[in-house]
Amino acid sequence: MRLTRADIDSLESRRRAALINSITGFKPANLVATADPQGNTNLAIISSLVHIGSNPPLLALVVRPDSVDRHTLSNIRATGVYTINHVHDGMVDAAHQTAARYPRDVSEFAATGLTEHWREDFAAPFVEQARVRLAMRFREEQLLAVNGTHLVIGEVDAVDLPEHSLLDSGALDPALANSVAIAGLDSYYRATLLQRMEYASPDHPPRRIEK
Amino acid sequence: MRLTRADIDSLESRRRAALINSITGFKPANLVATADPQGNTNLAIISSLVHIGSNPPLLALVVRPDSVDRHTLSNIRATGVYTINHVHDGMVDAAHQTAARYPRDVSEFAATGLTEHWREDFAAPFVEQARVRLAMRFREEQLLAVNGTHLVIGEVDAVDLPEHSLLDSGALDPALANSVAIAGLDSYYRATLLQRMEYASPDHPPRRIEK
Repeated sequence: MRLTRADIDSLESRRRAALINSITGFKPANLVATADPQGNTNLAIISSLVHIGSNPPLLALVVRPDSVDRHTLSNIRATGVYTINHVHDGMVDAAHQTAARYPRDVSEFAATGLTEHWREDFAAPFVEQARVRLAMRFREEQLLAVNGTHLVIGEVDAVDLPEHSLLDSGALDPALANSVAIAGLDSYYRATLLQRMEYASPDHPPRRIEK
Repeated sequence: MRLTRADIDSLESRRRAALINSITGFKPANLVATADPQGNTNLAIISSLVHIGSNPPLLALVVRPDSVDRHTLSNIRATGVYTINHVHDGMVDAAHQTAARYPRDVSEFAATGLTEHWREDFAAPFVEQARVRLAMRFREEQLLAVNGTHLVIGEVDAVDLPEHSLLDSGALDPALANSVAIAGLDSYYRATLLQRMEYASPDHPPRRIEK
């Protein structure tokens, strides 16, 4: 079936959001943790993490300043640091609950039962329960004039991961860390390896790496 | 285990790329199809598609102008349109092969065995084999000064999807369309629904929607 732009525009707003948030396909499920300068913490599930470059290692988040993300944004601006924590299959309920609109003086850690993990000399908490955790340093922010969202770009400062999830290639296999994928606004998925491919070259047909 | 920034910086460049491309978690696997003004086509696998907003429906791609993406970028600028096509589990070999550095006069459609599907009044081809296909109109481009990549923002003009993959909520379930996820640069995954959640509220604990 085909939905035209007129069909999309005529949808009730929550149905339109459900559709457009889901049409990109599977998305990474991450918790972004921050603190304000007084150490009050904030935790938000974000599916808009995207790779910008490997050298230096740069990742970006799309953040909506009018939503539950607003505390995340103000904390990142204030402290210059944040953490990104993969959601695994045993913490989906708590991770999803961070999307609730709690008042500013309520930490989503306390409200959802997730635990703050602090490191010396780093002004943002990690999520104790997460297995893959990234320490991030804020690099720059770009306003996307098209709709007032912000692109927050940061450098990877450190990576925690389970040793068994690191492949011979040097890559992390998020399935081996039980990380989950998200689709739309409400659906969480387990992923199983279908196939791994050799580096693509015009000189040979596609080749699968044997498992 | 923990990798510090010094550890990351000391990795051989292909290993560093493998690590940093994989640490965001699962990513959507999409083929971006374009044509130049003469109708010569280009097809590129891209895992950097990200949701920007639902009203108007806006999606962004991170594009590296120094890579195989460069023809994609010049075609989008020239024609103002492109298509995004979900990779499903029966087309992974061909989709991955579009990442090979073919000369400009070779279309990745012909080289990989994927088929162009043209529509009247739309100057970019769709991928015939794909089940979820988005017609996109270029809106704006932002240079990310931090490393010279480009953020290409477009509006969704139309969506094709299998009717059985549309949920009661109005969302697409990419698992019902057999869409795959990608991790890192070379690994493709099937996804199976773990749980679907009600809208998160401070007034009640997390609630799963019964399947």
